[in-house]
Amino acid sequence: MSKQRLEAFSDGVYAIAITLLILNIRIPEVAPAFLGSALLQMLPQVFAYGMSFFVIALYWFSHHRVAQQVKQIDGTFVWLNMIWLLFVTIMPFPTALLGRYPFQPLPIAIYGADLILANVTGFIILIYMGRHPELCFTVVDSALLRRQVPIYAITNGVYVLAIVCGWYLPSLSYGLYALILVFLAIRFSQVPDPLSGRKQD
Amino acid sequence: MSKQRLEAFSDGVYAIAITLLILNIRIPEVAPAFLGSALLQMLPQVFAYGMSFFVIALYWFSHHRVAQQVKQIDGTFVWLNMIWLLFVTIMPFPTALLGRYPFQPLPIAIYGADLILANVTGFIILIYMGRHPELCFTVVDSALLRRQVPIYAITNGVYVLAIVCGWYLPSLSYGLYALILVFLAIRFSQVPDPLSGRKQD
Amino acid sequence: MSKQRLEAFSDGVYAIAITLLILNIRIPEVAPAFLGSALLQMLPQVFAYGMSFFVIALYWFSHHRVAQQVKQIDGTFVWLNMIWLLFVTIMPFPTALLGRYPFQPLPIAIYGADLILANVTGFIILIYMGRHPELCFTVVDSALLRRQVPIYAITNGVYVLAIVCGWYLPSLSYGLYALILVFLAIRFSQVPDPLSGRKQD
Amino acid sequence: MSKQRLEAFSDGVYAIAITLLILNIRIPEVAPAFLGSALLQMLPQVFAYGMSFFVIALYWFSHHRVAQQVKQIDGTFVWLNMIWLLFVTIMPFPTALLGRYPFQPLPIAIYGADLILANVTGFIILIYMGRHPELCFTVVDSALLRRQVPIYAITNGVYVLAIVCGWYLPSLSYGLYALILVFLAIRFSQVPDPLSGRKQD
Repeated sequence: MSKQRLEAFSDGVYAIAITLLILNIRIPEVAPAFLGSALLQMLPQVFAYGMSFFVIALYWFSHHRVAQQVKQIDGTFVWLNMIWLLFVTIMPFPTALLGRYPFQPLPIAIYGADLILANVTGFIILIYMGRHPELCFTVVDSALLRRQVPIYAITNGVYVLAIVCGWYLPSLSYGLYALILVFLAIRFSQVPDPLSGRKQD
Repeated sequence: MSKQRLEAFSDGVYAIAITLLILNIRIPEVAPAFLGSALLQMLPQVFAYGMSFFVIALYWFSHHRVAQQVKQIDGTFVWLNMIWLLFVTIMPFPTALLGRYPFQPLPIAIYGADLILANVTGFIILIYMGRHPELCFTVVDSALLRRQVPIYAITNGVYVLAIVCGWYLPSLSYGLYALILVFLAIRFSQVPDPLSGRKQD
Repeated sequence: MSKQRLEAFSDGVYAIAITLLILNIRIPEVAPAFLGSALLQMLPQVFAYGMSFFVIALYWFSHHRVAQQVKQIDGTFVWLNMIWLLFVTIMPFPTALLGRYPFQPLPIAIYGADLILANVTGFIILIYMGRHPELCFTVVDSALLRRQVPIYAITNGVYVLAIVCGWYLPSLSYGLYALILVFLAIRFSQVPDPLSGRKQD
Repeated sequence: MSKQRLEAFSDGVYAIAITLLILNIRIPEVAPAFLGSALLQMLPQVFAYGMSFFVIALYWFSHHRVAQQVKQIDGTFVWLNMIWLLFVTIMPFPTALLGRYPFQPLPIAIYGADLILANVTGFIILIYMGRHPELCFTVVDSALLRRQVPIYAITNGVYVLAIVCGWYLPSLSYGLYALILVFLAIRFSQVPDPLSGRKQD
């Protein structure tokens, strides 16, 4: 199995998913005099677009960090990777739903559910790497996995909280999604990758 | 002829086809109070989406396995590869048709016909490789080809059965498509590639 | 300037253009009982889809043959390449037009005009390579260019004929487009590349 | 961090954004006899399409020139690159808006705002490279940055002028956008890259 082709395929999927998002922002059909207010009404769509753009960028970043530790792949790894990509390619749908029905509980919940599923799949891939050290440059031992648990627990816990808030205080849901996004974006660019740090051991 | 550019082009086509599938799942246009039931009515579309996602993933996997045995390509190989890609790029159409008209015989038949055509093209590529050993790392001899026949015969036989069932028992058609998908997915990840096994001879 | 990134970018554009074609084939919206006849009425669209799929495949093949002779690129080469890609990315529009308004002179003419523009741009790139031997592995001298002229003249001449036929005998236009497609596809896979043949001189 | 995967991802995004533009040019739905005049009415869309095609091509070219000077990347560079890509992936929206509402001030302003934002992000990336010489092959010192300022100032100044003209003389806005496009396209292909020139020092 060639790791390079799986990376090329995955990069393609991320690049397409992130670029397709814009297709769901439809041009308003109004008389030119009403274009300004029609565009203002599109702000929830623009916000959903921007958020999902950086969510997919974050997934790509995360994929990149994991793939760097992978030496070779097997059939199971390919399928786990495909499931991860499934939840990325789905993203344009909850994004469009959230843009079309802003501040509604169901779109907020579907959006959050996709984030959680992608997150959990990412963690399962880490566990699989831990059980198959022959696939990795880095030893993903149980101590390292355990140190990752709090991050995953906090992230997914906040996502669940955001989903629940959708029924009571939807604007807080938006805030929570954005908060996790900013938190992970900063963490990814500032904190050295715990996996790659192990390589020098 | 450069094998690398054909792989890059093919990876691009697979990545785009798999990501475009989501564009056919349209946001429902209802009052927010009816969003829940509108989303429930979309379940056949979601099922068709998920199935086609893994069908295209499987084609990619299959392409990857064949391409690994190819040393260099010629003009005929490029065109056979293009015909294989044609049946992959078509996939979003039968998927959308199956999602829009669930449990109807014609969409089931068109979906199955595309699967069979892609499958047969893949087998023709194997035969071509067998006749042009100068293109391959592995000798694809008639004994190896003959051992592949049962897999192709069973797969396409079940597809034909699923098409026929579309007129009498459409839910069985869905089951048969899903069955072959799971069977091939497991086979690809568990059974070592018969082609690559030959290399060590 | 990196030739590799221009190739990667161009491969991406070809792969996307060829895969996007399917998005213009819309699912019919009819009662299930009328699905069969609705699908039959889509045959002109399916024909236009198939033809454009292989036209873009042919352009990719042609791009591949030219790029193999290129050693390094300069700014002008990048822009000539972009103009070539422009006429490829436009292709989904005349394809959809031809599918929606079959046997009408204007769609036939617009389709043919795009083919001619892409063809002429390809020839201008060859001329540019002839004037800048420092960019090429192969010397594209005037004798070689002159031997290419008949192919380009016949191809574009038949395209012009097909456009004119659109007003008098549109079915002949379809035949002429298909004829040139088959002729070039066979030529590309059978006749060795005149450029690459020069390398051994 | 792997520079190669960021380039592959970015090339994918540019290739998709440039190819998606055509999807916003919808087939007219008229009786065949009125097809000619319906197509003529689409000329503003075609103009917007062509302009944005070369704007994205120019961004790709610019990205390519910057990336060639980059030796390795860090987390902040990835996010700056993502913001740059954001303004590229947005491009199909202002393009469609400009095509649908030609000669209207708001679409002209939104189009120009996207161009300015992309431009400024590109300049911020240059500044970041200047502060992190360890990431670069070339020393991007303050003298070099200062020599870039006039180009960025003129470009963005003309964009601001074009936005203002949208309210008074919209046809001049179009002319100014096209002028900057031609100016930068010629500059990129004729003037040697100031960054790469430094390498030989």
